[in-house]
Amino acid sequence: MALKKEHRIGRHATLLVLTDDRNEQEKITNQLNWKSCSGKVGSMESQKVVAAIETAAKQQGIIKDNVYRETHSLYHAIMEALYGITRGQMQLGSVMRTVGLRFAVVRGNPYEDETEGEWLAVAIYGTIGAPIKGLEHETLGLGINHI
Amino acid sequence: MALKKEHRIGRHATLLVLTDDRNEQEKITNQLNWKSCSGKVGSMESQKVVAAIETAAKQQGIIKDNVYRETHSLYHAIMEALYGITRGQMQLGSVMRTVGLRFAVVRGNPYEDETEGEWLAVAIYGTIGAPIKGLEHETLGLGINHI
Amino acid sequence: MALKKEHRIGRHATLLVLTDDRNEQEKITNQLNWKSCSGKVGSMESQKVVAAIETAAKQQGIIKDNVYRETHSLYHAIMEALYGITRGQMQLGSVMRTVGLRFAVVRGNPYEDETEGEWLAVAIYGTIGAPIKGLEHETLGLGINHI
Amino acid sequence: MALKKEHRIGRHATLLVLTDDRNEQEKITNQLNWKSCSGKVGSMESQKVVAAIETAAKQQGIIKDNVYRETHSLYHAIMEALYGITRGQMQLGSVMRTVGLRFAVVRGNPYEDETEGEWLAVAIYGTIGAPIKGLEHETLGLGINHI
Amino acid sequence: MALKKEHRIGRHATLLVLTDDRNEQEKITNQLNWKSCSGKVGSMESQKVVAAIETAAKQQGIIKDNVYRETHSLYHAIMEALYGITRGQMQLGSVMRTVGLRFAVVRGNPYEDETEGEWLAVAIYGTIGAPIKGLEHETLGLGINHI
Amino acid sequence: MALKKEHRIGRHATLLVLTDDRNEQEKITNQLNWKSCSGKVGSMESQKVVAAIETAAKQQGIIKDNVYRETHSLYHAIMEALYGITRGQMQLGSVMRTVGLRFAVVRGNPYEDETEGEWLAVAIYGTIGAPIKGLEHETLGLGINHI
Ligand SMILES: [Mg+2]
Ligand SMILES: [Mg+2]
Ligand SMILES: [Mg+2]
Ligand SMILES: [Mg+2]
Ligand SMILES: [Mg+2]
Ligand SMILES: [Mg+2]
Repeated sequence: MALKKEHRIGRHATLLVLTDDRNEQEKITNQLNWKSCSGKVGSMESQKVVAAIETAAKQQGIIKDNVYRETHSLYHAIMEALYGITRGQMQLGSVMRTVGLRFAVVRGNPYEDETEGEWLAVAIYGTIGAPIKGLEHETLGLGINHI
Repeated sequence: MALKKEHRIGRHATLLVLTDDRNEQEKITNQLNWKSCSGKVGSMESQKVVAAIETAAKQQGIIKDNVYRETHSLYHAIMEALYGITRGQMQLGSVMRTVGLRFAVVRGNPYEDETEGEWLAVAIYGTIGAPIKGLEHETLGLGINHI
Repeated sequence: MALKKEHRIGRHATLLVLTDDRNEQEKITNQLNWKSCSGKVGSMESQKVVAAIETAAKQQGIIKDNVYRETHSLYHAIMEALYGITRGQMQLGSVMRTVGLRFAVVRGNPYEDETEGEWLAVAIYGTIGAPIKGLEHETLGLGINHI
Repeated sequence: MALKKEHRIGRHATLLVLTDDRNEQEKITNQLNWKSCSGKVGSMESQKVVAAIETAAKQQGIIKDNVYRETHSLYHAIMEALYGITRGQMQLGSVMRTVGLRFAVVRGNPYEDETEGEWLAVAIYGTIGAPIKGLEHETLGLGINHI
Repeated sequence: MALKKEHRIGRHATLLVLTDDRNEQEKITNQLNWKSCSGKVGSMESQKVVAAIETAAKQQGIIKDNVYRETHSLYHAIMEALYGITRGQMQLGSVMRTVGLRFAVVRGNPYEDETEGEWLAVAIYGTIGAPIKGLEHETLGLGINHI
Repeated sequence: MALKKEHRIGRHATLLVLTDDRNEQEKITNQLNWKSCSGKVGSMESQKVVAAIETAAKQQGIIKDNVYRETHSLYHAIMEALYGITRGQMQLGSVMRTVGLRFAVVRGNPYEDETEGEWLAVAIYGTIGAPIKGLEHETLGLGINHI
């Protein structure tokens, strides 16, 4: 049941949001026959962050939008990533802060054993801070779920 | 007050824990005249994770151990990273799970303006899961604080 | 001070929200000389869930609306039930989810000893999920407080 | 994708822990070709609650203990149920309280559409309070996850 | 239903823990015919803080130890005060920190209207920090509940 | 590194919000060469509480508004105070409650050793409750941070 070193899906998703040149990471995605998508979202409304990731993952075919178990898996992976982004209360504007974020969603098989099936990784990276340009620091979150 | 692109301290700390060859990242640390340290900790006891990071940062001179404001800054950065690692309750053994983690602490000046001074980034990456080898997935956390 | 088996007020409130035919449960409410009310609420706004339960309990005479200690008791019982409903952050629309819920409030004396006085149970049951019909699963919460 | 009324897996698991005579509910489990198990656990140590449910579900064949994705699904369903049980901090003895609980785990297909596959429901019901017999009230939690 | 200015029970309890000379506050307690007790507790174990306050309140007759509704009221007031003390996770040693605290429990009638009855205030004040003398800062919490 | 008894900055900020006559406390602020400001805010919107404190502290020169590390220090001190005010979820209107609050921000050096530098204390005191006059009780929070 071990995690394969070259199949660390969370590390892969994180490198996708951290890299300035995604080509190398996307090449790995393809070699592994995994699926991934990326995007950006900036907002004081936390629901817009959730919606941006869900919409990108559905439109780019990472998950099937008419199968609830896939939406459910993604939703909880996003929530887990948001714990890292928000660190204490999953709120943005309502505690007077805003975010500028990049995200990546990766779908693949991180385990050696085939029966472990597919998993999702949601990585989010960017800045969080006061709603004034520059009054902000970096923030990062990662969520992992079976799908 | 803007974050300098080459000075993204949180991204730097995260790459330090994600990379399999730390040389390249440590070269950057040195070029920037920043300080960093890394280490590993595996435990079901959450206090051991905190202690391992504090001890490494003090022993390797990232923070001064006889100045409380530096310990305080590091402590809250660790707590913030642990929100990402634990995603909901900052507990390990008491909710029947264990971790195997790598961590990095970076001290540097991420902002263009000198008056912003020094900041700390604490990145933690590894696996979390049941106390049985292989029943685990990846986890990641990042904390940022002024020092 | 023991809980009386036939007086398990939380179990009773939960059966009220789970049953498709409330007659049997309401008969028990009457036999025990307890008070209860039920209702429905669907919303993406968490405050509407709180308000619906408070309004029903006041209008149907479960609590006195001009006595703050009764409102206070009910409020905290509702909050406790919402921990079960929301499991991690007491938010609905702001984390892009919606609920369709039934609730029951029961007021009675669950303890053998008369000096333990009256208590409230708030049970909430229904579905939670994406704001798209069918992308949802069940959810349940129970709050208990002395009044 | 709608939830089938007779297939409400969370309601079913909750009735299993609330009923004084489990026969009727277990008959339903069998008719639906679902799997379920039940058990009891009393402790001031939260990890014992998690372990009791995991052990019962594995020993009684509700989940496969050598497939991590099944353990992962169950673990998060237990965590969600514990939010309802603990209402605020997932701690027992460390905040000076103890529990006496019954639990049920049900595995089945709650959705009309076959592609939604199997889901787990974990229901927990009992008492929580001071570590003195009788100084306690009821508590309830439900967790739902795809498997 | 208004709070009486001279009857602000939470302010009174807080002044009791903040004052270096309790005589003046205790005089007020007596004039109002309220009850209060004070004490100290230092520990890395959060349950010892809860136990110290419960024990003091029972031994000094602030609450009746054989009436569960009074223990229940006090317990939740303590929990609410601990949110202020711990600010994020109700943990001490398990996140590598310790406390040195004074506490006061006051029982009285803060509202003009007699039907509002008696309420409890629990105030806690002291230091929190690393388990090394001096590496600590102040912390404060207040809990209020009807009894 | 010890806290100086006469320099307890959190106690000082708390007395500022609790006192009906601020003169005495403000005299102490001046004697110590510390800075402080006070204000009031009432709202169902949690962001208005944050904004009121930030604005007062900037306008009255407690922190420099063009230095992010000072804003960052204040922001986290406010968040910590709000844990005490909200006790469980940092939400007001979205859980159907409102606040009427006084706040004080104090900047000074609480430690004997000069190298510990300046710290901030944010104290908040007032009432929290239903959005109906009188259905409310007291609430208090304190946040401390190095600056
Ligand atoms: Mg997981
Ligand atoms: Mg910050
Ligand atoms: Mg309770
Ligand atoms: Mg779910
Ligand atoms: Mg209250
Ligand atoms: Mg601190």
